[in-house]
Amino acid sequence: MSIATQDINADINNIRHKTEVFPEIEKIECELHNALSDSQGAISQMCSHMAGSGGKRIRPLLVLYCGLVFSNRSESLEKAAVAAELIHMATLAHDDIIDDSQMRRGKPTLNTVWGNHSSVLCGDYLFAKAFGILSENRLYKSLSLMIEAIDCMCNGEIQQAENRFNINMNLEIYYEQITRKTAKFLECCCKSGASIANADELQTAAIGKYGLNLGLAFQIIDDILDYRGNEDIMGKPKGEDLRQGIITLPLILLQSSEKYRTAAHDIINRKTICERDYAILGDLLVNTGSIEQSHKIALSHIDKALLCLKVLPDTPYRDALSNLAEMLRFRDN
Amino acid sequence: MSIATQDINADINNIRHKTEVFPEIEKIECELHNALSDSQGAISQMCSHMAGSGGKRIRPLLVLYCGLVFSNRSESLEKAAVAAELIHMATLAHDDIIDDSQMRRGKPTLNTVWGNHSSVLCGDYLFAKAFGILSENRLYKSLSLMIEAIDCMCNGEIQQAENRFNINMNLEIYYEQITRKTAKFLECCCKSGASIANADELQTAAIGKYGLNLGLAFQIIDDILDYRGNEDIMGKPKGEDLRQGIITLPLILLQSSEKYRTAAHDIINRKTICERDYAILGDLLVNTGSIEQSHKIALSHIDKALLCLKVLPDTPYRDALSNLAEMLRFRDN
Repeated sequence: MSIATQDINADINNIRHKTEVFPEIEKIECELHNALSDSQGAISQMCSHMAGSGGKRIRPLLVLYCGLVFSNRSESLEKAAVAAELIHMATLAHDDIIDDSQMRRGKPTLNTVWGNHSSVLCGDYLFAKAFGILSENRLYKSLSLMIEAIDCMCNGEIQQAENRFNINMNLEIYYEQITRKTAKFLECCCKSGASIANADELQTAAIGKYGLNLGLAFQIIDDILDYRGNEDIMGKPKGEDLRQGIITLPLILLQSSEKYRTAAHDIINRKTICERDYAILGDLLVNTGSIEQSHKIALSHIDKALLCLKVLPDTPYRDALSNLAEMLRFRDN
Repeated sequence: MSIATQDINADINNIRHKTEVFPEIEKIECELHNALSDSQGAISQMCSHMAGSGGKRIRPLLVLYCGLVFSNRSESLEKAAVAAELIHMATLAHDDIIDDSQMRRGKPTLNTVWGNHSSVLCGDYLFAKAFGILSENRLYKSLSLMIEAIDCMCNGEIQQAENRFNINMNLEIYYEQITRKTAKFLECCCKSGASIANADELQTAAIGKYGLNLGLAFQIIDDILDYRGNEDIMGKPKGEDLRQGIITLPLILLQSSEKYRTAAHDIINRKTICERDYAILGDLLVNTGSIEQSHKIALSHIDKALLCLKVLPDTPYRDALSNLAEMLRFRDN
């Protein structure tokens, strides 16, 4: 079944149907299950809990499609795809400790069920498992890209923590932060797939830029959803960013309005954000057009991502990459 | 200066003089400093805090000497040595979260100063840094050995957590646990150095067995010190194992004494161990000879480690490996 000929619009936000839109997900789920099948005891339970909690599998799909656009299906591509998802799972296990999160994808987080201690170990185990798969299969370029991504993510998270409640947060710092925290990993996933398929330098650069812009759009929409999302659909509470003092794009744009800057600063400076503050800010962000402007910026990154695909071979897998980007326009979780 | 001709006995427990006994430590410190020099912000501060807190640098010394015993000095060996120490530092950062430790080597732990959140990230950063060094230098065998060690350590820690306050803990489980938690990493460090120096299969197996036995001795002595050590010298409080319900060799041996088994079980089953319980158990462990017997077992592993060295080329570096094992006989921190 060709991916390109499917009508993705009907299925876009329906997790149950995602395997119809992206049939490769089934293979990824199977490989993921195999990769984790030799884990033991509590680690095994934690891995099942995480793997069974859904997730969009965007990173492994990126690895796969960015390879398949240049070459045939191969075991190497599938292994690299699974490694990317394992690394993503490892960062989630550690992120939930970092953010002290209680819920993710509508389920209690690892740290809520098994405690911080086991979550740390589960994350380390998943990192080791991912690197083990890449190393065993001699996927050294992918390995080096994944290491680069993890290094960036750590620095992005630390930078974010250092800028908590920083009213001087600006667009430049924000972009650096979300590039490190989110977009670089997606860029590296794309380059990982392309490298396995022996894409040339120009094509690899283009596909990397596609992943980077996809990642920027993904994170900006995530930041918007924290103000305007539907908690039932997101499976986690809203307002977490603000409560933790993370200043994201909508709030940075609001501060460019002279009229509301002081009101925004007053709330941020309080550092303990109550429901009323959050509601006031939410209204301000809508009324000043900051949310709308943020959304336009996210869409501009989707457009940039799509533009990068133009130089790639015209195959059903290029269409699949295009669909992944188009899906983001409607992202609500 | 030949390592073999030095009198190590005088310097054995003197950290200030360790570079005289093992002059390669200076090179390791320098490489470690270089490896961490591009870290930023809080990660940089945390890395400096850890690297500056001393530490025995046993793992990088093992990598170095296990290479130098077969071949000349090389940049690869130094890189692999530093990577091993970075991985050790990463596991310490995460272990202190897992054990909720306040002090290590007489200094507050990372999580005490920077919190659990930053400690998780610092550990991840150090893992990525270590793998980056191994990957950049194409030290793929070392990389695969380090991954194996991390996988084992995670499973060992989880196993230990699952056996907390387990009065049925026995020698077999204990050995499996300390092999995974501690000894495997030392084995992998030794094999890492030997693989870079192109040691043959037999020699690599022997040097791995040396590392494994060194690791077993190291952990058993660590477990004894938790009952009988000097807190000022250790730089951390005693009795942590028992408080956390970790049943180690001395306590397992005590349970083989029919006379005292019930008393030991009563204390373990209480699960909240007070100072008085700890003192009673400490006395029992001495009076029944359990401490002495544990020490003898540790010494037997040192002897086994030394025996493994016999098949290696007779060089000053084999003597250095011998010295590292002999030092353990006097380990008090």
